Amino acid sequence: MKRLVLILIALLSLTEAAAQSGSATIIRFPDVPGYKTLKCDFHLHTVFSDGNVWPTFRVQEAWSEGLDAIAITDHLEYLPKKEYLKADMNTSVAIARPAAKQHGLILIAGAEITRKMPPGHLNALFVKDANALVKDDWKDVVLEAKKQDAIIMWNHPGWVSQQPDGIARWYEEHTFLLGLGNFFGAEVVNGTDFYPEVLQWCLEKNLTVLGSSDSHDPIKTEYDPLKGEHRPITLVFATERSAEAVREALLAGRTAVYTRNELIGRDEHLRPLVHASLSWSGTTFTVAGREWAHVMITNLSQLGFDLVLATPDDAIQLPRELRLEPGRSTVFSLRARSVVEGPHAIDRRVNAVYSIKNCLVGNGRKLEIAFPLDVRITRAN
Amino acid sequence: MKRLVLILIALLSLTEAAAQSGSATIIRFPDVPGYKTLKCDFHLHTVFSDGNVWPTFRVQEAWSEGLDAIAITDHLEYLPKKEYLKADMNTSVAIARPAAKQHGLILIAGAEITRKMPPGHLNALFVKDANALVKDDWKDVVLEAKKQDAIIMWNHPGWVSQQPDGIARWYEEHTFLLGLGNFFGAEVVNGTDFYPEVLQWCLEKNLTVLGSSDSHDPIKTEYDPLKGEHRPITLVFATERSAEAVREALLAGRTAVYTRNELIGRDEHLRPLVHASLSWSGTTFTVAGREWAHVMITNLSQLGFDLVLATPDDAIQLPRELRLEPGRSTVFSLRARSVVEGPHAIDRRVNAVYSIKNCLVGNGRKLEIAFPLDVRITRAN
Amino acid sequence: MKRLVLILIALLSLTEAAAQSGSATIIRFPDVPGYKTLKCDFHLHTVFSDGNVWPTFRVQEAWSEGLDAIAITDHLEYLPKKEYLKADMNTSVAIARPAAKQHGLILIAGAEITRKMPPGHLNALFVKDANALVKDDWKDVVLEAKKQDAIIMWNHPGWVSQQPDGIARWYEEHTFLLGLGNFFGAEVVNGTDFYPEVLQWCLEKNLTVLGSSDSHDPIKTEYDPLKGEHRPITLVFATERSAEAVREALLAGRTAVYTRNELIGRDEHLRPLVHASLSWSGTTFTVAGREWAHVMITNLSQLGFDLVLATPDDAIQLPRELRLEPGRSTVFSLRARSVVEGPHAIDRRVNAVYSIKNCLVGNGRKLEIAFPLDVRITRAN
Amino acid sequence: MKRLVLILIALLSLTEAAAQSGSATIIRFPDVPGYKTLKCDFHLHTVFSDGNVWPTFRVQEAWSEGLDAIAITDHLEYLPKKEYLKADMNTSVAIARPAAKQHGLILIAGAEITRKMPPGHLNALFVKDANALVKDDWKDVVLEAKKQDAIIMWNHPGWVSQQPDGIARWYEEHTFLLGLGNFFGAEVVNGTDFYPEVLQWCLEKNLTVLGSSDSHDPIKTEYDPLKGEHRPITLVFATERSAEAVREALLAGRTAVYTRNELIGRDEHLRPLVHASLSWSGTTFTVAGREWAHVMITNLSQLGFDLVLATPDDAIQLPRELRLEPGRSTVFSLRARSVVEGPHAIDRRVNAVYSIKNCLVGNGRKLEIAFPLDVRITRAN
Repeated sequence: MKRLVLILIALLSLTEAAAQSGSATIIRFPDVPGYKTLKCDFHLHTVFSDGNVWPTFRVQEAWSEGLDAIAITDHLEYLPKKEYLKADMNTSVAIARPAAKQHGLILIAGAEITRKMPPGHLNALFVKDANALVKDDWKDVVLEAKKQDAIIMWNHPGWVSQQPDGIARWYEEHTFLLGLGNFFGAEVVNGTDFYPEVLQWCLEKNLTVLGSSDSHDPIKTEYDPLKGEHRPITLVFATERSAEAVREALLAGRTAVYTRNELIGRDEHLRPLVHASLSWSGTTFTVAGREWAHVMITNLSQLGFDLVLATPDDAIQLPRELRLEPGRSTVFSLRARSVVEGPHAIDRRVNAVYSIKNCLVGNGRKLEIAFPLDVRITRAN
Repeated sequence: MKRLVLILIALLSLTEAAAQSGSATIIRFPDVPGYKTLKCDFHLHTVFSDGNVWPTFRVQEAWSEGLDAIAITDHLEYLPKKEYLKADMNTSVAIARPAAKQHGLILIAGAEITRKMPPGHLNALFVKDANALVKDDWKDVVLEAKKQDAIIMWNHPGWVSQQPDGIARWYEEHTFLLGLGNFFGAEVVNGTDFYPEVLQWCLEKNLTVLGSSDSHDPIKTEYDPLKGEHRPITLVFATERSAEAVREALLAGRTAVYTRNELIGRDEHLRPLVHASLSWSGTTFTVAGREWAHVMITNLSQLGFDLVLATPDDAIQLPRELRLEPGRSTVFSLRARSVVEGPHAIDRRVNAVYSIKNCLVGNGRKLEIAFPLDVRITRAN
Repeated sequence: MKRLVLILIALLSLTEAAAQSGSATIIRFPDVPGYKTLKCDFHLHTVFSDGNVWPTFRVQEAWSEGLDAIAITDHLEYLPKKEYLKADMNTSVAIARPAAKQHGLILIAGAEITRKMPPGHLNALFVKDANALVKDDWKDVVLEAKKQDAIIMWNHPGWVSQQPDGIARWYEEHTFLLGLGNFFGAEVVNGTDFYPEVLQWCLEKNLTVLGSSDSHDPIKTEYDPLKGEHRPITLVFATERSAEAVREALLAGRTAVYTRNELIGRDEHLRPLVHASLSWSGTTFTVAGREWAHVMITNLSQLGFDLVLATPDDAIQLPRELRLEPGRSTVFSLRARSVVEGPHAIDRRVNAVYSIKNCLVGNGRKLEIAFPLDVRITRAN
Repeated sequence: MKRLVLILIALLSLTEAAAQSGSATIIRFPDVPGYKTLKCDFHLHTVFSDGNVWPTFRVQEAWSEGLDAIAITDHLEYLPKKEYLKADMNTSVAIARPAAKQHGLILIAGAEITRKMPPGHLNALFVKDANALVKDDWKDVVLEAKKQDAIIMWNHPGWVSQQPDGIARWYEEHTFLLGLGNFFGAEVVNGTDFYPEVLQWCLEKNLTVLGSSDSHDPIKTEYDPLKGEHRPITLVFATERSAEAVREALLAGRTAVYTRNELIGRDEHLRPLVHASLSWSGTTFTVAGREWAHVMITNLSQLGFDLVLATPDDAIQLPRELRLEPGRSTVFSLRARSVVEGPHAIDRRVNAVYSIKNCLVGNGRKLEIAFPLDVRITRAN
């Protein structure tokens, strides 16, 4: 509609009547001790390669969805709309830059090195001149990227077009990349695909866990808001909200992936995020006999957590399963397994370890958290 | 995400593995006697003027939303992305054409003649060569359009950028246009704006009632599906599902506008649409004394109708207000106002005329429909 | 709010001003050849046993959700609210009866025989006098039910409170029931539980496949509409919309269960329902060489179907997976696997058999349907 | 479904296996300086008068929706289900009491004095013995209520069944009530009705502004979550979360009503709530010439605010309208109206007063808030 266009014109050209610029969702994941939790997508296309939207739209869209940072990563070697465009490899990022400044969105200059497997597709981020990355031999490209101080990630390692069985394979080319020093991470999630074997490599080879949309169309076309779908997001735990801090965190591996209704990443990064997401009330209590006590957990994040009791306490009876709905408070009940005999009360920390089914910290491994419950059990009154 | 791209490639280039092409909503407005009810949007922009999406995306998007026909109408005189494009005025439609063929979507070649008021902005539809429409004098443009057998509509006559008070004005330029013979209609609705005075002109000057999105961004960005928003749609009552039939219906004025939660158009076109949308059960009944009878109306359309009793019946008590939820059945109750005295029953058609608050057939006038109820009132038993 | 109360009063007491009685959803499952598809729930509680709602509310709620028939089945032996109630075992159904008549809802008098396993809980339907079913020995109860011409179903055979591992077991008590002649079916689905082994018994022992809500609270409290949840529904394929026809269909086993996003039942009953739900266009076509052809399937039901290619055609390449969204049209593409050599075209029925992942016709078995596609493959032109 | 019943049994009877008790929404209205913002509904019915749900359900429902306090207020004089119940006037509250304790919900013992107009219907809250309120003369009832230290509110003063034109009238009976000293407030909102004239009386006669659901059916049946509907809530600004603090705040008039998408109350109570709901960034800035500056407002509440510029600044150009979406951040742009001539910059507080269309502080009066913006305008650089 015209109104929106006017708004955009107002914002970008700064020549029109004062106007509202639109509004942005707040993605509810809390900061963690020492770090801000930035919401990022490092893999996006525009009409300047095989995407269907203008670069400024990627900025507006990401800002409106509550993201802090994006990379525009048009293909270097696949340019199906070329005949209609006057552009070089830097154009899409250059067009998006002023809009990003206006919205306060961190925009990272990227480019997708688009080769057959191996090494498959790679994103160079923090690129200085994407034109210089146009070279025949992919090894020359990654060396040039290194010269520009760009960093390299591996895209969709298990893409069915390159691995028909959908399973990622590690080639010596990737070992070569590892040796370069600027190969920092891999997509464990790309769009709606998840590659569990890549998560395992990240843990073993010290790569950063990444999840990207790789969107070509508008996000709302690819992910249906009516079904509660959202693009995969890389949560970056950064010292501040800046491009430099994002880069530092990516190199240090401080990320987690938020996709569908789950979190994927290293135990050490998911743990503080989950703890910051949960707030407790009624964690210290006294129960007489087999009286029930009630505990309330409030989930401040936007992800519901599905918990399963991993280690049952031998004296206290706890729920086997718990669903902590996002943005809601959940109450559960516990009590002694049996009546205490004799005159003395029992004071103890309850041994309640829950496994979070939708917090993946390894191929098949779930995050386990201990509930901070202290109970005094007295005789029945 | 990659998968969608693959699909699009499959569909357009016809070189990939067999794939699902996606799915399309069914917009639930029934056909009317003698005509198919086609869902159309005759005003859309792409990156080839000041829009933010590629032309093929407009096709995919419209098909997916259940539309039958669209016009791509890039500006002839406003080309802010020009420096990045190799294109002429026919390019955007030409790019969209094969995708439209694949999807079975009717694509109408259009162009927006973009002038200051008067005459303001005009869309030429069924254009043969948009390049020939690039001329200094707007009168030369509309004459050239006529030469091409194109037809002309008036866009957003009350646009605040051209009419700061938001009220449309009729100029002698529009009288000139009327004289040309191919000036067929005007936007009563553009995006989220509605111009009641334009509706009145349409009725008086025999212009076709139109509603367009005038979208520059993806539809789902401009209309929030989570809020139940949708683009304005021109319902075209056509003899068949073809470009020619759309043209014939537009020239004959057989349209209605579906916007927000209302229908706007001529009484003669809204009436059969509403009748085709409603199905009745229990319309003939016998009530004894002041016994209640129950009538069920099923609303097959996707628009809820808000009814108010316009003419109360003097013998039968009817609900003052009725809400016919879309896709649902509504039951209401009626009974005699008083007990019939004497031995004879009364047989009569109930005089139940309801005004539909959200069916506008003139500036301030609502569609009125009579309920098809026949009742026999007998003495109380 | 007061208004709703007025409406209900109007409807039930027939003493108030004419009013709208509310509206009812249409549950979109089509009729099948020879039968109406009735939507039913045969297991519901009220405050007259351990439920939390008044009997008339069960009627209003079911009608509003688009159901055709319900049974109210309060417990005979579990009456926790007894101290607050003046009632016998027939009261809840008697209270609901006039409301059901007003709404045109089929109300079946039921009672839940509430015993420990075996035989567990049983519903008696079409009960004449529930008070007569209050007896010590459960065998006497089912014999009395038989005397009343009531029919018996087995509720939640795998309920974790009676089978801690959640797996149903068949006891000699159930063999005894089978011998009685009025034991007609079992709940394959109860609330959010599904018992695959019970589905298998239904097939083997000629029992009717049933799915019930067993609701104690309001349905919208138990099933979150915001998450797209709905109560389990037994689809009954009946000769007409009447209590007698429901009974006949239940005894004849003509049912299917609609729960979450799947259908469960016998192949012979799911097959016509799925066929009636799908409408095809473009099923006969000619392709030259490896040209693509497009087929459109419209899913008229409210359940999305997830299809997987079960038997690939050796000459025609088909999509491996298809998602047929509810109320939408889905297009897919197919073409010849290779170019036909020689002068002759090939005419054939495409051998496209798809397995529907969410149509269960046995423990682990999915419904398979053949696509009605006829193709002529000619040489490339 | 059985599971929920089990949960409830677990919670109430304290005899079953440890279980999750369910989860509760967080209603996002922040606390205000000095007070907690409690969410309350002081008008609810159960099966013990003309409602359709059991008293414990009212507790579970309110807790699950995030309420802090409810009053159960069954009719004293309208008992249509009487023939089925063994109960006196205190029974419904007594049944609900243990459930309220379990959930940590504040339960206020109430009763609805149900008389024809005048005085119409009155709720007595903080009742000690509702049986003692059963008296012929309504004046005796309110005197008895006063003896019990109960407080009295006026329900739906403009109810169409008592005022056919829907307009509330003040009678001498209400002046009599005022004289008693325990008549503290009136429903400005009841269900979906709003009585603007009652708001005016509250301001003039020092009555507390109240909004209640007056629900008889389950809340989710009366307010459709799919349409974003919610029950009217009285926000009580209390010194702590306790029944005593609610009572003190009600008598002191510290409330606001949250209904549909608006807030209604005294200016002095809405103002701190709106201020606590909004968080600003970029409120102090320097602009050169007619450069644009950007301001971001985050709306932490769950109500979107619709703002209209009430007092335009003579030097700074501001948006005429602003929509602050709930839970989102909104950016708007401003700049100097003209270029500063001469060498000196201008430092000033921007005079930006906005009227909030959906914050009603009187019959027809909207809350006005000043934006905290300080700007330095320098010469263009």
